[in-house]
Amino acid sequence: MSAGPAIVLVRPQLGENIGKAARAMLNFGLTDLRLVAPRDGWPNPAAGPAASGADMVLEQARVFDTVAEAVGDCPFVYATTVRRRGLVVPVVSPEEAAREVRGNDGPSAILFGAERSGLETDEVAIAGKIVTVPINPQFGSLNLAQAVILIAYEWSKGRALAVPTRNDNLEPPAPHAHLEGLIEQLYESLARVDYFHPPDRTPATKNTIRTILTKARWSSREIQALRGIVRALTEGRRGSA
Amino acid sequence: MSAGPAIVLVRPQLGENIGKAARAMLNFGLTDLRLVAPRDGWPNPAAGPAASGADMVLEQARVFDTVAEAVGDCPFVYATTVRRRGLVVPVVSPEEAAREVRGNDGPSAILFGAERSGLETDEVAIAGKIVTVPINPQFGSLNLAQAVILIAYEWSKGRALAVPTRNDNLEPPAPHAHLEGLIEQLYESLARVDYFHPPDRTPATKNTIRTILTKARWSSREIQALRGIVRALTEGRRGSA
Repeated sequence: MSAGPAIVLVRPQLGENIGKAARAMLNFGLTDLRLVAPRDGWPNPAAGPAASGADMVLEQARVFDTVAEAVGDCPFVYATTVRRRGLVVPVVSPEEAAREVRGNDGPSAILFGAERSGLETDEVAIAGKIVTVPINPQFGSLNLAQAVILIAYEWSKGRALAVPTRNDNLEPPAPHAHLEGLIEQLYESLARVDYFHPPDRTPATKNTIRTILTKARWSSREIQALRGIVRALTEGRRGSA
Repeated sequence: MSAGPAIVLVRPQLGENIGKAARAMLNFGLTDLRLVAPRDGWPNPAAGPAASGADMVLEQARVFDTVAEAVGDCPFVYATTVRRRGLVVPVVSPEEAAREVRGNDGPSAILFGAERSGLETDEVAIAGKIVTVPINPQFGSLNLAQAVILIAYEWSKGRALAVPTRNDNLEPPAPHAHLEGLIEQLYESLARVDYFHPPDRTPATKNTIRTILTKARWSSREIQALRGIVRALTEGRRGSA
């Protein structure tokens, strides 16, 4: 698998947004930040505080004069933009771009335009593909760091770096006999308080109870807890039973 | 297809972050914002400017005192958190959560904790599932609006494709308020028989009970039946109570 893509911020205006982009990147394991002609020069004192600890990304950031120089080593270049600008370039979703980047046989770069103006048409033209985040047509207002985080997030999905989210230590459902024990205990407790009344409804009522208790797929530990609860309710106040 | 999930911000601190969350939501077509005990009250003058035009979301936002009230109408509740806190609750990725929300047969809510502290354990316990964004284990620094945007983005992805997949003749899970009624009734009944002993274990014991009862996703009819069962066990033999 290839390394993560370079994130290329083209003419970024605010140092704060550069810092936020670095933070967004590092959350998902991206570290290669490149800046093209940052408006206020580089380094920018506003970037560090906004990076919330992603200083390593800022320290390693490289500055270039043009987009072409910034992506000089990258065979695969993607431009994030909402407008196609008359260019006949394939448009992919963040998900598709991420999948491609993971499979690309060489370094990839993803271009992000300036906060207000976005990328120039000739900068988009450098890219082989356009990445467009599908947003609400009535309200499209993604900021720079948000665009970066969505791309970084999609890229990270295919990686193993991710904190385990699986249910490794979820308890498996109990063997049926354990559930049966709970059900029998409850039937007996309910019978003692004449719950099953009238008698001809008893089978249907019992089936309803069984269905309700079966549905949850409780673990053995949970069933033990429930048996304790039924016992407590049945036997009444501690010591007085 | 179900509507988009409610986004529930629990004890949010900065109005600015509430505004950013609203902006993140509307980018991906979400509009149902709920606030639980916002630190600085509501409305908050700092929210509007940060929403960058997503004022409609802020204007429609509803304020609640507790998480349970905020999700009272939602059978499907998810808690975003990175820590499992000893709760035995299924953990899903944003992608899986989004897929579920699109298929859920009733309203869904997604809880987001306060900026620094996140959700309390007993708030997580209200949720049937935990959503965890898989982030860089060496650098996990997602802010509130970023967490919201990733969830909203994932939800929006499948919108056009989503097909109702649920079993139409299964009863849908009850709104959360119904479940809450059962839980409260059981807590009270158990308290009366001194079940919660020793006192310092009470919160953990209550969370365990809550988790066990939340897991089943019972319908309102099933919850009614269980309330009748708890009442019968508590009040003892018919006529003798």
